[in-house]
Amino acid sequence: VKLYSHPLAPNPRRARIFLAEKDIGVPVVQLDIFKGENREPAYLAKNPLGGVPFLELDDGTIIAESVAICRFFEEMQPEPNLMGHTPLERAQIEMWQRRMELQILANTGGCFRHTNAIFAGRFPQVPEYGRMCRENALRMLEWLDAELASRPFVAGARYTIADITALVGIDLGRSSEIAIGPAQKNLARWYELVASRPSAKA
Amino acid sequence: VKLYSHPLAPNPRRARIFLAEKDIGVPVVQLDIFKGENREPAYLAKNPLGGVPFLELDDGTIIAESVAICRFFEEMQPEPNLMGHTPLERAQIEMWQRRMELQILANTGGCFRHTNAIFAGRFPQVPEYGRMCRENALRMLEWLDAELASRPFVAGARYTIADITALVGIDLGRSSEIAIGPAQKNLARWYELVASRPSAKA
Repeated sequence: VKLYSHPLAPNPRRARIFLAEKDIGVPVVQLDIFKGENREPAYLAKNPLGGVPFLELDDGTIIAESVAICRFFEEMQPEPNLMGHTPLERAQIEMWQRRMELQILANTGGCFRHTNAIFAGRFPQVPEYGRMCRENALRMLEWLDAELASRPFVAGARYTIADITALVGIDLGRSSEIAIGPAQKNLARWYELVASRPSAKA
Repeated sequence: VKLYSHPLAPNPRRARIFLAEKDIGVPVVQLDIFKGENREPAYLAKNPLGGVPFLELDDGTIIAESVAICRFFEEMQPEPNLMGHTPLERAQIEMWQRRMELQILANTGGCFRHTNAIFAGRFPQVPEYGRMCRENALRMLEWLDAELASRPFVAGARYTIADITALVGIDLGRSSEIAIGPAQKNLARWYELVASRPSAKA
C-alpha cells in the first residue's frame, strides 16, 4: 500500500491525519504538484483526474478522494473510531464532516485558489469569487464558534473526521487572512485541543 | 420521520431517489425555498444552515446533508445496497460518489447559482465563475463518457449512489445549456438506463 500525497495540500493532509489517529503506517510518496508531477503519464494512469491524495493497494487498485481513503481504513480498522458506530452516529458524523467540508474547507480553498498568487498562470482565477469565499468562510467561522459553545468537538463529545476536515480547512485559511477571531473563544478552545494532537503534524 | 425537501432542488432529489430505490416510504414536507420558507425561525431551529434536505426523526433528531441522510438509511436497511458491502467496495463507491459530486454536480450547480436569473438579487452572483463552472462541467462530461466505455454504471457493474449524484448533477445542467454531447454515446446510454428507472421521478 502507498499513499500519494503532497506535504502542504489540504486533502492529502486529511488522509495523513486520519491514518495517524488510527496509528496505521502507510508509506507516503510525495508528488510535487507545483511541478505538475501528478500530471505525468505514470501518475495519470493511476488517477486520471490528476489530484492527490490517492491510495494504491498492493494489487494496483486505486482509491482516490481523501474521504474515500478514510472510509477504506475506517472499515478495515474501525477503532479508534472516527466515523461512527451506529447508523445514527454515522449519519451525524457524516453531516458534520460535510458541513466542515462545504462551509469551511470549500470556502478557504476557494479563496486560496482564486486569490493566491501561487496559482496565477496555472489555474484560471476569478478573484471576485475568491473574495466571496473569504466572506463565506468568515461567516461560517462565526457560526462554528456558536456551535462549539455546547460541545467539545465538532460532531459531539469525541474527536472525529469532522474535526480533521475543520482543522485542515481553517489552517488553509491562514494564507488568505481568514483566521479565528479574538471573540471566538469556543472555536479557539477547540482549535487548541485539535491542533495540539500529534496527528496534526502528520 | 419526515423529510424536508423541495420539489426541484438537486440535493433533496438525491435523497428522494435514494429512498425510492430502497422502497422506503418517508413523509415529505416540501418547503418553498424561493419564498424563504426554509429560513423561517421554526425551520432554522431544526436546521440552522437553512438548507434542504433535512430529515427529522420521531424524537426530533435532525440529520441534514443529503449524503448523510442516505448514509442513515443505508445503515438502517442495507439492501438493495447503494453504498457498498466490503471495505473496498464502500471506498470505491464513495470515491465515485464524490467525483460525481465535485466534478459534475458542483460545476452544474455553480453555473446555475452564478448565472441563472432566478438567483438575481437573492444570492450574490459571480457570472465569470459560473461560466468557468460550465466549462469544467462540459469537460467532465467528456471524461465521464470515456469512463463509461468500460462499465454500465458510474461505480462499476451495478447502480449505486454515484449514479444518483451523476443523474441529479447532469439534469441540473439543462437549465445552463450543459448537455450530453451527440458524440457521447456511453454517457447517453448510461443516462437512458438511469433516468428511466422509476426512482428518477421521486
